[in-house]
Amino acid sequence: MEELVVVALGGNAFQSKGERGTIEDYMRNASYAAKAVVHLIERGYRVVVTHGNGPQVGVLLEWMERGKDVAPPMPMDVANAMTQGWLGYILMQAINNELCSRGLLDRVRGVVAIVTRVVVRGDDPAFQNPTKFVGPYYSEEEAKRLAQEKGWVMKPDPRGGWRRVVPSPMPIDVVEWRAVKQLADSGWIAIAVGGGGIPVVREGCSYRGVEAVIDKDLASAVLATLLGAQRLIIFTDVDYAYIDFGKPSAKPIKEMTIDEARKLLEQGVFGEGSMAPKIRAAIYFVEHGGKEARIGHLRKAEEVIEGRSGTRIVPQR
Amino acid sequence: MEELVVVALGGNAFQSKGERGTIEDYMRNASYAAKAVVHLIERGYRVVVTHGNGPQVGVLLEWMERGKDVAPPMPMDVANAMTQGWLGYILMQAINNELCSRGLLDRVRGVVAIVTRVVVRGDDPAFQNPTKFVGPYYSEEEAKRLAQEKGWVMKPDPRGGWRRVVPSPMPIDVVEWRAVKQLADSGWIAIAVGGGGIPVVREGCSYRGVEAVIDKDLASAVLATLLGAQRLIIFTDVDYAYIDFGKPSAKPIKEMTIDEARKLLEQGVFGEGSMAPKIRAAIYFVEHGGKEARIGHLRKAEEVIEGRSGTRIVPQR
Repeated sequence: MEELVVVALGGNAFQSKGERGTIEDYMRNASYAAKAVVHLIERGYRVVVTHGNGPQVGVLLEWMERGKDVAPPMPMDVANAMTQGWLGYILMQAINNELCSRGLLDRVRGVVAIVTRVVVRGDDPAFQNPTKFVGPYYSEEEAKRLAQEKGWVMKPDPRGGWRRVVPSPMPIDVVEWRAVKQLADSGWIAIAVGGGGIPVVREGCSYRGVEAVIDKDLASAVLATLLGAQRLIIFTDVDYAYIDFGKPSAKPIKEMTIDEARKLLEQGVFGEGSMAPKIRAAIYFVEHGGKEARIGHLRKAEEVIEGRSGTRIVPQR
Repeated sequence: MEELVVVALGGNAFQSKGERGTIEDYMRNASYAAKAVVHLIERGYRVVVTHGNGPQVGVLLEWMERGKDVAPPMPMDVANAMTQGWLGYILMQAINNELCSRGLLDRVRGVVAIVTRVVVRGDDPAFQNPTKFVGPYYSEEEAKRLAQEKGWVMKPDPRGGWRRVVPSPMPIDVVEWRAVKQLADSGWIAIAVGGGGIPVVREGCSYRGVEAVIDKDLASAVLATLLGAQRLIIFTDVDYAYIDFGKPSAKPIKEMTIDEARKLLEQGVFGEGSMAPKIRAAIYFVEHGGKEARIGHLRKAEEVIEGRSGTRIVPQR
């Protein structure tokens, strides 16, 4: 069977800086993401696609808050599920239509988005220390009222104002991974673990949704491992992982082993909100048997796929 | 292989009259729907689940409208996709947990919701005559402004105020039906065509989303036909299709052939906004090879499944 590649798309697959976020913006940005996926199909790979949802889940939480007298806002797990439908559909359309215009529709059985639950531990320490800012900005007074009223943890956001923080626990399993595998094995391009997946904890043989967000790169790495994928490609809006990122001495990393990557992580070389989780995801995947992970710019997808751009993370040299 | 049943759930699978629509309301109502599905699994059937989204898509359109300065509201096709994630997730949880508590998890491989596109014709006459009320209520003045600004068709709603109307074209195909079939054939309970599915028109080999809503019972009948299902069960909040519904002379119909059903439809016996589309869906399914369709009350699901309640629509006597 052809090699399986898991492609993890970042926020720029849907929205670029300065855009309002209309459906036209989404479709145009998604068409670039689709080109990356279709390039892999053309090269003979099987592909599973994952994606982020940060800006969209933020927008959705604000929409629900503004309209809370219309109907009670839904919790975080349901908000994630909504964005899986929303963004999964947009990706389905974009990939479908790119395959069509390139005359490559016969290479796949179709494109299909699976609403995916991702399991986290109820005793994950993240639940004691929520760190991920989500949703609207409030005044300190409103924030304190919401903390009391809803039991939310509210913190001042470094960008100004007060916001809710939610836990970001480690993903440990993907409930529907066998459905994803079955579809991928029989020629479908499957879209899964959107926005890191719907966070659930296991209670015996049942699942309970929790108010948390799961890092989409880590969830992608867990899914890629469960699927036995050979490669994980994380597309983002920088072309390499860098040493001294943003400084005049900035140096792109073209290749590193997981041991080297771990050392650089420990030294705090990678930004916590941006590159560090991608490096952790790459390490997780490669140490669990993945051949190689790559991190590169979505708009240079072909070069990343051909190995002419992007950072490669390998087991050893 | 075991007989395949398509179960179409109505609005009462999520919300009962008078409820605010909290996540707790949704989960409690969905647990009744889950009992129906699990009863079929226990009886040895394979099951594909479909569901409506009328109240939820209405709420979502209002949320987006109230929060339109946060981000541009998404169009109807995307709104449908969001509700497929939302309600698909809630059903997955409810069915999963019901299987767990009944000790029947080993009967299935899992529960999986597929984001589904449903094809309509671009030249469907419904596009010339939009009839389906959706979203917020407006004053006449606001309605006329929106009509001009967004090109929406606005009409006075018999319930008061002005609202947007959108076309309700006939479903003719389900893009992802083969993925649904593959999963159902290998033991998954698949959830599909939520809210009638995301309406798309085919343009060559590509698809374009359209601003419309598809009747969920008709979409379910088209899906059931494509899957080669033996039975279609439409669960709603009345126990039978009636002659003289709501009158003292009301008479429940226990069984009718599709010819009889067609005659009663022509006579206007069934309410257009409620029972008529269910009867049409039942006729469509049975005339395309389905063994039998049933329409009954969700809270009497066991009796409906055992044939002790509900209206049976059969090919002939």
